[in-house]
Amino acid sequence: MTVTSSECVENGNSMKVRAAIMLKTGVLDPQGEAIRHALGTLGFEGVEGVRQGKIIELDLAETDAKKAEAEVQRMCEALLANTVIESYEVELP
Amino acid sequence: MTVTSSECVENGNSMKVRAAIMLKTGVLDPQGEAIRHALGTLGFEGVEGVRQGKIIELDLAETDAKKAEAEVQRMCEALLANTVIESYEVELP
Repeated sequence: MTVTSSECVENGNSMKVRAAIMLKTGVLDPQGEAIRHALGTLGFEGVEGVRQGKIIELDLAETDAKKAEAEVQRMCEALLANTVIESYEVELP
Repeated sequence: MTVTSSECVENGNSMKVRAAIMLKTGVLDPQGEAIRHALGTLGFEGVEGVRQGKIIELDLAETDAKKAEAEVQRMCEALLANTVIESYEVELP
C-alpha cells in the first residue's frame, strides 16, 4: 500500500492522526509576518495575512478513531500545544 | 461572522488557504523523534512514529479557488517549502 506522507491513513495496524496547532487569534506571529513580507518582496500580491503553525503527524497503534482522537487531544493538552497561546485541532483519517 | 483560526474560510472579500508542509519520507526528523520520546516519557503508549511539519495559513484577496490554489503552489515552490526535502499540500476551503 502506497501512502503519501500528507494523508491521514487508517489501516489494520496503525492510524495516522494529525494535530494542527496554530497561534490563537490576537497572539503576535512575527514568523507569519516575515513570510508575508517575503511574499510581497517576491511579487506575490493580495496576501492580506499569514499565520504559521505546526503539524504533528502521529502514527498510532490505536485503531479506534474515537479513542485515537481522545488520546491525541490529551497529548495536545499535555505536551504538543501551549494552550495559553495556541489552539489545536485533531484531524482524523 | 465568527471564524476560528483553524478553519479554511471563503467569504466575499478574502479566502483562507492553508499550505501543509511536511518533511519527505526518509528525511530524518529529529524534532519528531524528540516528541515521540517525550510522549513515551509522559506515559502515552502505542505511538509508533511522529513527524513534525508546518502549516502556513494565508489570507488571500483572491476569491477564485482555482487561482488561489495555483498561486499558493507557486508560493510553496518559491519560498514556503524546500522541495528538496519537503513536500507540500494546498488545502482549500
